[in-house]
Amino acid sequence: MNTLSVNLGERSYPIHIGSGLCTQAALIPEKLLKGKIVVITNDTVAPLYLESVLSGLRARGAECMPIVLPDGEAYKSWETLNRIFDELLSHRCERKTPLIALGGGVIGDLTGFAAATYQRGVPFIQIPTTLLSQVDSAVGGKTAINHPLGKNMIGAFYQPQVVIADMDTLRTLPPRELAAGLAEVIKYGFIRDAEFLDWLEKNIDRLIALEPEALAFAVERSCQNKADVVAGDERETGERALLNFGHTFGHAIEAGMGYGAWLHGEAVSAGMVMAARFSEKLGYIGKADVQRVVDILARAKLPVAAPELGAARYLDLMGHDKKVEGGRINFILLKKPGAAFISNQYDAAALQAILSTPKQTHA
Amino acid sequence: MNTLSVNLGERSYPIHIGSGLCTQAALIPEKLLKGKIVVITNDTVAPLYLESVLSGLRARGAECMPIVLPDGEAYKSWETLNRIFDELLSHRCERKTPLIALGGGVIGDLTGFAAATYQRGVPFIQIPTTLLSQVDSAVGGKTAINHPLGKNMIGAFYQPQVVIADMDTLRTLPPRELAAGLAEVIKYGFIRDAEFLDWLEKNIDRLIALEPEALAFAVERSCQNKADVVAGDERETGERALLNFGHTFGHAIEAGMGYGAWLHGEAVSAGMVMAARFSEKLGYIGKADVQRVVDILARAKLPVAAPELGAARYLDLMGHDKKVEGGRINFILLKKPGAAFISNQYDAAALQAILSTPKQTHA
Repeated sequence: MNTLSVNLGERSYPIHIGSGLCTQAALIPEKLLKGKIVVITNDTVAPLYLESVLSGLRARGAECMPIVLPDGEAYKSWETLNRIFDELLSHRCERKTPLIALGGGVIGDLTGFAAATYQRGVPFIQIPTTLLSQVDSAVGGKTAINHPLGKNMIGAFYQPQVVIADMDTLRTLPPRELAAGLAEVIKYGFIRDAEFLDWLEKNIDRLIALEPEALAFAVERSCQNKADVVAGDERETGERALLNFGHTFGHAIEAGMGYGAWLHGEAVSAGMVMAARFSEKLGYIGKADVQRVVDILARAKLPVAAPELGAARYLDLMGHDKKVEGGRINFILLKKPGAAFISNQYDAAALQAILSTPKQTHA
Repeated sequence: MNTLSVNLGERSYPIHIGSGLCTQAALIPEKLLKGKIVVITNDTVAPLYLESVLSGLRARGAECMPIVLPDGEAYKSWETLNRIFDELLSHRCERKTPLIALGGGVIGDLTGFAAATYQRGVPFIQIPTTLLSQVDSAVGGKTAINHPLGKNMIGAFYQPQVVIADMDTLRTLPPRELAAGLAEVIKYGFIRDAEFLDWLEKNIDRLIALEPEALAFAVERSCQNKADVVAGDERETGERALLNFGHTFGHAIEAGMGYGAWLHGEAVSAGMVMAARFSEKLGYIGKADVQRVVDILARAKLPVAAPELGAARYLDLMGHDKKVEGGRINFILLKKPGAAFISNQYDAAALQAILSTPKQTHA
């Protein structure tokens, strides 16, 4: 097991990465196991890991209360959140009752937002079971639910007490979900870690083959990148925005296709290609750099062509993004592979071109 | 105009108290007036103050977007909150779009929670127009909505950028609302400010007569008390709980009678009498001290007898309170007028007696 730290002063917390961790209640601080503890998961993850997580907690004396939600992005909604609140209230959960998120990004975001707002905040623990949540959503304290007019529009910055990333849970991950997680892993390479990008280009096949050692390294390196960025800019007033590389386009794809049709990582993958092409169009990078983005994503079995929603629809959807400021969209662009920057200075015609011909990214 | 400060490091903010302030957009930091600004109010306050507030903002170049909600505690709900989100999203409000709460506690709590969670947090300004919100809810960053199973159960700690308390708005306040505000003013005297309590006993009639000088002093002294407590314990892990004197009983009264039947301040008034009687029963204070609580509240035209809900119903309702820990209720008790403390050590029979015969508080 390796342990990283997210350094946020009094809100600092550890990330434990390794095999066989999710049953080890020993990784959860003693003071959180004194009374009731709520484990929130979904009906895909529950049959796989819930019982062993509960056993571990019970063995340490905790009184467990599981909540099993339906699986899927469509349930990252106010209705599901309210169902959690109903259960917490009817079971008289208190201000010190911890909530454990056992699942992927949807479970983590929902549980985190419930923890941030139930009685104005209760302790929160992340046990991410997908690659995407292990390398991205479980770290950094962003929590949210979707709104019909936009993804993650309602939420809070709320840090967990501990993140436990168990490599074993990745064995049961469907290949499409694994690929979706790799999109975020690859993202770290392009935005700030050229050395990691080189490693990924050499080792991407080992990751797809689920080699435990390669996976643990990729998760650890990704978490280290995320922890560094978050420690420097917890509430996204600056550098943290770089983590959104590919996400402005990606969120538009997810919303435009209907939440759940494209996985978040798939939309981010196509979005990163769009962002790379936009960076090329604006003269920041060359054709070969764009190809590098396309190639590694394609090797990770991710979509590199965006759906044809039409430029007008893309613009409309992107106008709802949280990265809009003063009516202009803040884009994350590449100045080279391994270095991204944020800019709202762009030529509208260039943007139009990217949005009008997304299919050409395949060429 | 007098200005106090709530000292919370980088989240510090001023409270301006005086006459003719609500039209003075000059009190709002320049950087918040650059683009769109949302003013959230209700249909009682809107005809009185909305237009003059908007004029002040427009004169400084802000693009105003008012949202007028129905008046009443019943609207401190998810449905109303979602209506705010719908408006913010359909008008493309951004991460830097400030929300101004213009109204009493319900508007302040709703707007504050919307500001805390819209796009994970936008700037927030309080212009409280009731005595209760000026001396209590607008200061300190507690925001929330109600849940059918409990008051203020879903919320966040989220500090405003500035609080503007305009004494002029109190002139239009119905006498019942004024009295409800006085309950919280009197509370500060009993929990931590014996000198202020003496002043209140001499000057309560001037407050009821809306004497501007007396009101301004009472608001300022109350805000100073609240600011001192909040600065020492923002997230209520200790001393801040003292501000809940009378509230555990009071919340049960509000919920038990149906939200809106009793005003919050009225319920707190009856709740403070119950807490004082409980303190007497447990041997902390004498009969004369209880009488002092009863007398000043009665002079402020506040209820001093709790409704007869029955002990079982009271216990059930109090079991949902946020001050419950390990199944025991944390009570705020008096050790003398001017000094409160928190305790979960109590005799169940003594509590039962208080809850069974609330009407005797009148004797």
